[in-house]
Amino acid sequence: MVTTAERLLQDNLSLFEAMHKQAHDNEPKRVAIVASKGTLDMVYPPLILASSAAAMGMECAVFFTFYGLNALHKTKSRSLQVSPIANPAAPMPVPNILGAIPGMTSVATWMLKSMMRKQNVPTAAELIKVCQDSGVKLIACTTTMGVMGVKEEDLIPGVNMEGAAAFLEFASKAHVTLFV
Amino acid sequence: MVTTAERLLQDNLSLFEAMHKQAHDNEPKRVAIVASKGTLDMVYPPLILASSAAAMGMECAVFFTFYGLNALHKTKSRSLQVSPIANPAAPMPVPNILGAIPGMTSVATWMLKSMMRKQNVPTAAELIKVCQDSGVKLIACTTTMGVMGVKEEDLIPGVNMEGAAAFLEFASKAHVTLFV
Amino acid sequence: MVTTAERLLQDNLSLFEAMHKQAHDNEPKRVAIVASKGTLDMVYPPLILASSAAAMGMECAVFFTFYGLNALHKTKSRSLQVSPIANPAAPMPVPNILGAIPGMTSVATWMLKSMMRKQNVPTAAELIKVCQDSGVKLIACTTTMGVMGVKEEDLIPGVNMEGAAAFLEFASKAHVTLFV
Repeated sequence: MVTTAERLLQDNLSLFEAMHKQAHDNEPKRVAIVASKGTLDMVYPPLILASSAAAMGMECAVFFTFYGLNALHKTKSRSLQVSPIANPAAPMPVPNILGAIPGMTSVATWMLKSMMRKQNVPTAAELIKVCQDSGVKLIACTTTMGVMGVKEEDLIPGVNMEGAAAFLEFASKAHVTLFV
Repeated sequence: MVTTAERLLQDNLSLFEAMHKQAHDNEPKRVAIVASKGTLDMVYPPLILASSAAAMGMECAVFFTFYGLNALHKTKSRSLQVSPIANPAAPMPVPNILGAIPGMTSVATWMLKSMMRKQNVPTAAELIKVCQDSGVKLIACTTTMGVMGVKEEDLIPGVNMEGAAAFLEFASKAHVTLFV
Repeated sequence: MVTTAERLLQDNLSLFEAMHKQAHDNEPKRVAIVASKGTLDMVYPPLILASSAAAMGMECAVFFTFYGLNALHKTKSRSLQVSPIANPAAPMPVPNILGAIPGMTSVATWMLKSMMRKQNVPTAAELIKVCQDSGVKLIACTTTMGVMGVKEEDLIPGVNMEGAAAFLEFASKAHVTLFV
């Protein structure tokens, strides 16, 4: 029986490959994202990608680590900022010597928020709500919590707490893996 | 018949797994890259990876979003810059207080370009041309176009315009997914 | 025979898909990471992820390119720094105008190191040793070596030297692909 089965499968490698491709394309998709940045601009990409993935029926988890943990912090998440310096690619770049003037970080942050609002892009807090409501798993990195002295009660409700190993286990079965 | 087939496949799980691995290794590879940075240094990695992937026969798409959109902008792509500050890992790091002096951004940009040229690394514009000629799909993020007020005619010719959902659909069938 | 085999496989698509999923979940996992940053904070994520992956029995390679190459440089890897400016998401953010004062980069670096030490997080050098001892393949990007004038003898021992194509070949068969 084994011999027949082996021959049967091996004789049909191209058929097997076609079915393999079809099975891969058909299976429910999983997206694993690391969010390591805590500036307002770079908090958007993981949240936009995660909420879009969830809306498309994909299973999604976002692992907030390093500065990214700020996005899940009750108070810090309300005052995420964007830097006006060291980014010559900003929509309205200013010379670094001007960008370093006190108050310019607030100006750059206000500008980005107002550009987003005009295009009806949800705020970061709204995107987190959308993610939670649509089943995206939001994970706070436990190592980062230790290093930064963040307690469970400092985080917004409904967040999971896990380490890098748990995230890698999830990611190893994902179809899209991104480090932001 | 079903019973026989089921038994046949299940009795041969290790054979199935070996063929699964072979089918996976044999299939045409697909690479999906997000390019979110607009500084000269960080525009290179997505373009180098995409053109290399295409040269190796892989199917590749690059999704230009946030500051990354600058690389597809007719005029802005000609003046991409690198910041001399806030990067203590630069080849020749300068103290931030000197890096903030007007003109230092141009100096740092000139230095990077000249280091690249000496090693015959193509310019960003040349790499975009190579990508287009070798079938890499270059995608401008439509949401970013709205937020930054970029029109279709502002972009270099031959570029696609799509949203995050279309990119995720492509990426969900890719073998390599990277967020730069 | 072909007809029977074809019918047999195609009649059992859902069974095939279930076995495909099982085979995918069972296979040894592979992780491919690009490390492009050379600041102390951003050198940690690839090393922590790689050493965790290896501890979980996954096959892992890290491709050090651009500023990331500093982490494999004999002398530069001993003095990796973190910038005190342009990161309003830092644990203790300072106004950019203060962060630009000479010496503040050393202060920020010292702070991060001391926060890590208190939580018993290994140093970057220790993590590289752990990676090497647990079979993680550390790869220096040959193009970057050329651009930055780095010679083989400048690198820590036991490092591989390869180009982007070799990395993509490895990554195309990986389950987790991340660009840091």
